[in-house]
Amino acid sequence: MAVRVADIRAAALTLFSERGYQATTMADIGAAIGIRGPSLYKHVGSKQELLAQIMTATMDTLLENHEAAISGCEDVTERLRRATEAHVRFHARHRLEAFVGTREIRSLEEPHRAEVLRRRARYEHGFRKLVADGVQADRFRVASVKLTSYAILDLGMGVSVWYRESGDFTEDQVVYQYGDLALRLAGAR
Amino acid sequence: MAVRVADIRAAALTLFSERGYQATTMADIGAAIGIRGPSLYKHVGSKQELLAQIMTATMDTLLENHEAAISGCEDVTERLRRATEAHVRFHARHRLEAFVGTREIRSLEEPHRAEVLRRRARYEHGFRKLVADGVQADRFRVASVKLTSYAILDLGMGVSVWYRESGDFTEDQVVYQYGDLALRLAGAR
Repeated sequence: MAVRVADIRAAALTLFSERGYQATTMADIGAAIGIRGPSLYKHVGSKQELLAQIMTATMDTLLENHEAAISGCEDVTERLRRATEAHVRFHARHRLEAFVGTREIRSLEEPHRAEVLRRRARYEHGFRKLVADGVQADRFRVASVKLTSYAILDLGMGVSVWYRESGDFTEDQVVYQYGDLALRLAGAR
Repeated sequence: MAVRVADIRAAALTLFSERGYQATTMADIGAAIGIRGPSLYKHVGSKQELLAQIMTATMDTLLENHEAAISGCEDVTERLRRATEAHVRFHARHRLEAFVGTREIRSLEEPHRAEVLRRRARYEHGFRKLVADGVQADRFRVASVKLTSYAILDLGMGVSVWYRESGDFTEDQVVYQYGDLALRLAGAR
């Protein structure tokens, strides 16, 4: 049954990304994995619940990856590099989650929407703190801590839109080069 | 009638951004501006045509703004700065167009899809050339011309997602600071 719930979520993610949340029905999701409507409702409460689970899990993974990337690393420059690498790697790998996360935030109802927005604010704040710490330590030089951290976050969003495994760059190439680019944005010495 | 067509497009853009292309009907678009179905079809051929017009016009405007930004300016650094400023300004102002443009590319049918992708490739190529010109002139230093130009383009996409007039930054602040950030990405001296 654990596997089944994962299958349902994966099917929902694919359908939400292909046709949008509004145009997807629970029957579509069931049909994609060969489960009838009534059976489907044994596993998930509603389409809204599925969307909330997908978006909350996406933010939780980003937050965990961020923590893992910077924990045990003291150097402010390396912390920003690692956090950016984790950010870009997630967005290269989880393009559908990023796409649906951006596109369907309006489709989330409360309290789910507030829960996702709270996690996003926490994630943004993590990057802002990394930039601010570097400025404070006189290692970074920026016009605005907030805009610089937004620009670094933008890089991940962009990667989720254009990156393809079949393209000119491997995931590692994008990850490492974008890590360097984040340090440029921060004016790292 | 010219005004009417503009109204129809604006209503379609809003609805596509709110509920997605698939979930929007021509009747919804008509209802939004008080025109009945049959009347609507006097002005536009189909929902697909509306989407194609919106996305093609978006790319045409971006391409025109890009040309206007760099024409008559010879300095490679200033050319990249101005092109980025135009890019970011468009994305701060035309957030719905950017949003629908990213989200609904899959909903476009041929030959519209190829027409939009051709314009996008041209737009991307413009930025790639600006970065390459700067490298050639020994004014920029980058690990990869292509990835650097992608990263600069990512900045605009990001702005279209997070920018709000009611937020902490004016459009000009974002535009000018992001212009500076693009030069940092390019390793401009």
